Amino acid sequence: MTTPDQLLQALQTEIEQNNYGDQPAELYEPIRYIMSLSGKRLRPLMTLMAAALYTDDWQKALKPAHAVEVFHNFTLMHDDIMDCAPLRRGQPTVHEKWNANIAILSGDVMLVRAYDLLLDVEGNHIKRVLTRFNDTAAAVCEGQQLDMNFETRWDVTEAEYLNMIRLKTSVLLGFALELGGIVAGADKEATTLLYQAGVSMGIGFQLKDDLLDVYGDPARFGKQVGGDIIANKKTFLLIEALERAKGLTRKQLDDWLDEKDFDKEEKVKTVTDIYDSLKIRTFTEQKITEHFDQGFDCLERLKVDPTRKKPLLSFVHQLVEREN
Amino acid sequence: MTTPDQLLQALQTEIEQNNYGDQPAELYEPIRYIMSLSGKRLRPLMTLMAAALYTDDWQKALKPAHAVEVFHNFTLMHDDIMDCAPLRRGQPTVHEKWNANIAILSGDVMLVRAYDLLLDVEGNHIKRVLTRFNDTAAAVCEGQQLDMNFETRWDVTEAEYLNMIRLKTSVLLGFALELGGIVAGADKEATTLLYQAGVSMGIGFQLKDDLLDVYGDPARFGKQVGGDIIANKKTFLLIEALERAKGLTRKQLDDWLDEKDFDKEEKVKTVTDIYDSLKIRTFTEQKITEHFDQGFDCLERLKVDPTRKKPLLSFVHQLVEREN
Repeated sequence: MTTPDQLLQALQTEIEQNNYGDQPAELYEPIRYIMSLSGKRLRPLMTLMAAALYTDDWQKALKPAHAVEVFHNFTLMHDDIMDCAPLRRGQPTVHEKWNANIAILSGDVMLVRAYDLLLDVEGNHIKRVLTRFNDTAAAVCEGQQLDMNFETRWDVTEAEYLNMIRLKTSVLLGFALELGGIVAGADKEATTLLYQAGVSMGIGFQLKDDLLDVYGDPARFGKQVGGDIIANKKTFLLIEALERAKGLTRKQLDDWLDEKDFDKEEKVKTVTDIYDSLKIRTFTEQKITEHFDQGFDCLERLKVDPTRKKPLLSFVHQLVEREN
Repeated sequence: MTTPDQLLQALQTEIEQNNYGDQPAELYEPIRYIMSLSGKRLRPLMTLMAAALYTDDWQKALKPAHAVEVFHNFTLMHDDIMDCAPLRRGQPTVHEKWNANIAILSGDVMLVRAYDLLLDVEGNHIKRVLTRFNDTAAAVCEGQQLDMNFETRWDVTEAEYLNMIRLKTSVLLGFALELGGIVAGADKEATTLLYQAGVSMGIGFQLKDDLLDVYGDPARFGKQVGGDIIANKKTFLLIEALERAKGLTRKQLDDWLDEKDFDKEEKVKTVTDIYDSLKIRTFTEQKITEHFDQGFDCLERLKVDPTRKKPLLSFVHQLVEREN
């Protein structure tokens, strides 16, 4: 049985062996740079693990998995421009280290390179893989646009928020799993379940991100607890609070959202108290569990030998239980 | 025999029937907008004409041709951000009419939609078409990056400039013709000739653009003659002049390039005189003819019935002879 560590090692080698292109250096160096700020390689690992459910020759999923990681980093490069983000994984973003034009153009080439890597799948899978990838890529852009639209709106509903995170982050996790299945020759029922598992898990992960930003253990969370509250970020918790808060509570919440000059600690404490009074924490935890359960249910329903399924299940369990 | 007008009509219908997507509107409206600022549809027409050389069923090249036009307009949308261009075909650019973030993200979706449209080719052509398209798309980005790099360099050589315009504008014309051939089932020799014809013609067109900007007939040119000189744009003519001018002439040229406060008419006249003294016009005309001849030579060598070849040849002849 191949372990997740072996898959990750093979993936890192696959990524390091590709230089994406040579000249002009301004175009390709930023791609190598952002790809080297290695995150957790969550998405391509999902592709490899899904492939390993159905074949011992999971190596044939390496380039498609790499494509998913390149695409993900392309979206980060362009999103960072749009969000004026100075840092990515603790390092300067591409538009800061170089400039916005280079970040636009390097990102464009990354998207092309993702398609290049996808073309490595067997001929009889190309059209299906690319059709699904196109749908996913367009959905991710739609999610990013909705996220930007939400910045200036104060009446975003829970349903709208869930739809936004489904598009912006979850469909790519769904596609990552589905892709592994397709490449490994899984049947339609299986690839549909893999996709649904990824989407449900993805929504769960994003809601958990939102939750940990407020209720995470400061010793384990890794970044400042309350950052989203300080920045008025429209998270699931804030949207729920805006939907539920009435009368004086709503006025108090609105005042904190409007206040430009505030003590950060005081704002975090007060808004957290408001969330508590509205039972936002329990409700969010329920929603998270709901989505994770849906995801696990899909994975359970895969007709795969249980010992074969174990690595993927325990990998996903680890992700579900993380506190940072 | 299908006429170029019929091809253009079918193409316009194909383009108008596609709305590229619905929600969020901020993402898809800019795509419809830029596609409606209809330019000459030169590239997709080339695809259709190349297909019509080999099949009466040129309709099957409509979506691939549309893909080429969507890709071209994607590059315009992103290039306009990078160049801070306020106008495109006399109308506000997307980043002016909306904003830069929307122009980045709409452009990204356009690239995805171009791939969608390309997937319409027959299954046995998909991998070849996409591989060639990926090469082309990456080359176009490389050309744009080189063009930006050249802005701050004063030692660009003729060879470097020709390589830049080959990448930035010509390979897409080559691909447009090649694509029509592939879709229509032309053999490898034919598709290679079509590609080479497009690349050579494309270089000729760009050099002619550079030439007309200085030596065009003001009554027929449509925009201000001398615009490139006023803006110090690094055209083939300026690069040749910088390579050739010595002593006092070079000093005079450098002074005009450095001068911030000048009479536009005087600058255009003096720099044109310098070009004349260095025989830049004749040399550029020779280069243009050389590239057009190479292009026509490739088209001549296509083993296609002469009557069938006539519409494409006369269309290209018209382009070659245009004065605006």
